[in-house]
Amino acid sequence: MDAGINTFFEPRGVVLVGARSSPGFGYGIPLVLKSHGWEGRTFLVNPRGGELHGMRLHASLADVPGPVDLAVIIVPAPSVAAVLDQAGAKGIRHAVIESAGFAEIGGDGRALQEAALETARRNGIRVVGPNCVGVINTANKFSTIEVIEEAMVPGRTAVIAQSGVFGTVLLDMLHEHDLTISKAVTLGNRMDLDECDFLDYFRDDPGTSVVMMYLEGAADGRRLRESLLALAPSKPVLVLKSGRTASGKAATASHTASLSGEDEIYQALFRQTGAIRADTIEELVEMTRTFATSPLPKGNRLGIVTSSGSLGVMSTDMAVSSGLIVPELSESSREAIRAGSPAWMNVRNPVDVGPSPMFAAALEALLADDDIDMVLAITVLPYVIFKTVTGKGSSGRNWFGDLGEIRSRFPDKPLVQCAVGHHEFVDRMRRIAGPAVPLFIAPEPAVRSLAAMYQYSKRIKGTGTFIH
Amino acid sequence: MDAGINTFFEPRGVVLVGARSSPGFGYGIPLVLKSHGWEGRTFLVNPRGGELHGMRLHASLADVPGPVDLAVIIVPAPSVAAVLDQAGAKGIRHAVIESAGFAEIGGDGRALQEAALETARRNGIRVVGPNCVGVINTANKFSTIEVIEEAMVPGRTAVIAQSGVFGTVLLDMLHEHDLTISKAVTLGNRMDLDECDFLDYFRDDPGTSVVMMYLEGAADGRRLRESLLALAPSKPVLVLKSGRTASGKAATASHTASLSGEDEIYQALFRQTGAIRADTIEELVEMTRTFATSPLPKGNRLGIVTSSGSLGVMSTDMAVSSGLIVPELSESSREAIRAGSPAWMNVRNPVDVGPSPMFAAALEALLADDDIDMVLAITVLPYVIFKTVTGKGSSGRNWFGDLGEIRSRFPDKPLVQCAVGHHEFVDRMRRIAGPAVPLFIAPEPAVRSLAAMYQYSKRIKGTGTFIH
Repeated sequence: MDAGINTFFEPRGVVLVGARSSPGFGYGIPLVLKSHGWEGRTFLVNPRGGELHGMRLHASLADVPGPVDLAVIIVPAPSVAAVLDQAGAKGIRHAVIESAGFAEIGGDGRALQEAALETARRNGIRVVGPNCVGVINTANKFSTIEVIEEAMVPGRTAVIAQSGVFGTVLLDMLHEHDLTISKAVTLGNRMDLDECDFLDYFRDDPGTSVVMMYLEGAADGRRLRESLLALAPSKPVLVLKSGRTASGKAATASHTASLSGEDEIYQALFRQTGAIRADTIEELVEMTRTFATSPLPKGNRLGIVTSSGSLGVMSTDMAVSSGLIVPELSESSREAIRAGSPAWMNVRNPVDVGPSPMFAAALEALLADDDIDMVLAITVLPYVIFKTVTGKGSSGRNWFGDLGEIRSRFPDKPLVQCAVGHHEFVDRMRRIAGPAVPLFIAPEPAVRSLAAMYQYSKRIKGTGTFIH
Repeated sequence: MDAGINTFFEPRGVVLVGARSSPGFGYGIPLVLKSHGWEGRTFLVNPRGGELHGMRLHASLADVPGPVDLAVIIVPAPSVAAVLDQAGAKGIRHAVIESAGFAEIGGDGRALQEAALETARRNGIRVVGPNCVGVINTANKFSTIEVIEEAMVPGRTAVIAQSGVFGTVLLDMLHEHDLTISKAVTLGNRMDLDECDFLDYFRDDPGTSVVMMYLEGAADGRRLRESLLALAPSKPVLVLKSGRTASGKAATASHTASLSGEDEIYQALFRQTGAIRADTIEELVEMTRTFATSPLPKGNRLGIVTSSGSLGVMSTDMAVSSGLIVPELSESSREAIRAGSPAWMNVRNPVDVGPSPMFAAALEALLADDDIDMVLAITVLPYVIFKTVTGKGSSGRNWFGDLGEIRSRFPDKPLVQCAVGHHEFVDRMRRIAGPAVPLFIAPEPAVRSLAAMYQYSKRIKGTGTFIH
């Protein structure tokens, strides 16, 4: 059965029940819709009538004039079922229920949720929520989420978040990691639609290439397995799954009214389906960005260029622990790097160029080397030296080369940068490399992201079992 | 035998051999010394004579007039032994050799290092280096390291780094984490003095309360064990040890000419001695800052207050995985929190206050609760809401309470903050809480730091074996 998910992202018209002039979603969401060109397709309902943000407040849903196929409901929990009946009478078949106070608080809330679900079913209405903040579509600038402008820049990563607050905060962070999205949905209590419905939808969504998901527990483990199996081979799915421990699970139950299963089962499920599990928020964001910007590697041979021997050692440790190889360099690469290198420089992998001007040359040699599948560029420069270099009118490009330009000339293998040190140095390196070169501020997550790409690549090529 | 380590940090006078007007240490270090009031006690040597930064360049070490008891040597490797002889003739018994091109490049370099060591021994000179950047003492502003001003702010954490570049970059980062230092040393090739000499020195240094150390391999495993056993019970030692894997070890050998031992042996050594091992740079910095600012916990019972249920779940997962307990709240705490709470709020641990104004009250209840040993405050606010709150002239303090002020009223148990979201929100929360409340941008490292404090506390009280 097609749940008509697309209507949540591309409604002809939307009615917002619970608009109001005091702070909160009822005040903020109409403003978001208006500021993105949706004023003519947005209808607000509040029994007291009047205006909000220069838009009319209709006394009831029945009074709304325009074509509407999506209701966004923000009224208190006890009033939600009645609103669903009114929406059904209006011919609306899709609703986002943002109100809280349902199953997540137990007791009366659970009864209210059951009543709301029964009402929705009776009216043939598919529901996102309750206890969520709804959806975003960056392509048509439709959003039921109060979110920063940077999150509305169109990209190719879809976001599925069980929690509304966490989903919003995730969207607050993504642009700082040069990650842009296609669509986002927050699921809340999932009384009707759940993560599987959206995984299935994103599989066929031409605007989405990568999916990132935050789950506290699966709504239906068997179905999740099927959805991931169908999606993962064509589009990488990055998952952060919390509620790993018994205490964590207890906390989960009171948050979005889900019961998270045993962690081992999830671990096996992600491994079998090819979904990529992140262990922390940072890892989720960083891995997703790497998948969103990089070609898949052909193998697991990592080349490292570094201006700090220590960081080369740390990266090698992490690479080997993660299933990568840091191979000896081919004779041709060694020769290419040795030409012009000072006598003290170690021409091996990791290539520690120290303070020599050989960084760019070594980087290009590794990118051109057929025996290297992916490259990590570790840019480290003490701040005082960085200030001296940049103080003389240089852009800083000459020190490590123009990483963005080098990336564009060697587009066929993953290249990530790890810039360590003072934040001004890191910011400068981020700007020089541009969004096509994922930047990390520590070596370990950079290597973990590359390892995840290798494991995924191996999995979808059927050349090995998925190990994560 | 007393190596007279203190002379490295408090020389009466210092002579810098290899001062020069072209970019590099020889140009930068004299400037650092001059700018920190050391001009009258600094003597520069360069055979061509003349001036540098308005300071005289003496033609030879023998010509230096003032009392000097420390030589900083920056000449090319083949000239170092001769300089050591001149220093010895001048009565100098301490030298920092910053020059590279010794054992770390193998072959000829190794022979040069042996010759330098033999010369130093013959002259009774103790050496830091070669292939390092030397020392910092923030108390008297003495530094042989070109470092940012923020790193010269006096604090109570000592830094030992095997690598010069990495040590400098570490110093570039610390102030961004509100971490200030007492003294720092970079060891380089350790041809004479090594980490044990400095661990022993910092044990008796009244200005140092916490020690952070970066090692690629122990110079002498047995002695390291003794030094850590002697130091760790009175001052926490945080260690980042790289070269864990075979490939990492190979990379280490070419970097600072050390051979790192088997990782399992190090793991056991740190566990037995009570040293706290960090797995990444970020963890090293964050754990050190937590130890440097927090009282030790009396037990492992963690109280969590959060404005995001999801982050409460993630924190609980990490806490339980790290040996902490997230216990049920006592009846008195529950009552204190329940008073004034909205009906939907879950009054349990983690305390998820959602968008209610109960954050500060819940935080104070947990800090006052005798059955809670440490507290994690998770502040999460979608940026759009944060802007609304702060846009009305509020400082943002009213949303979560004044964490710095609350900290000062409950100084007896660890309190750390995890602020997740937009960087402007995080910066605001950092300022509100102040340096006495360590801030993390993700829940996992916050919990890991608390767990490390608990494990250390248990160890030094002799109530359990050290588990890390």
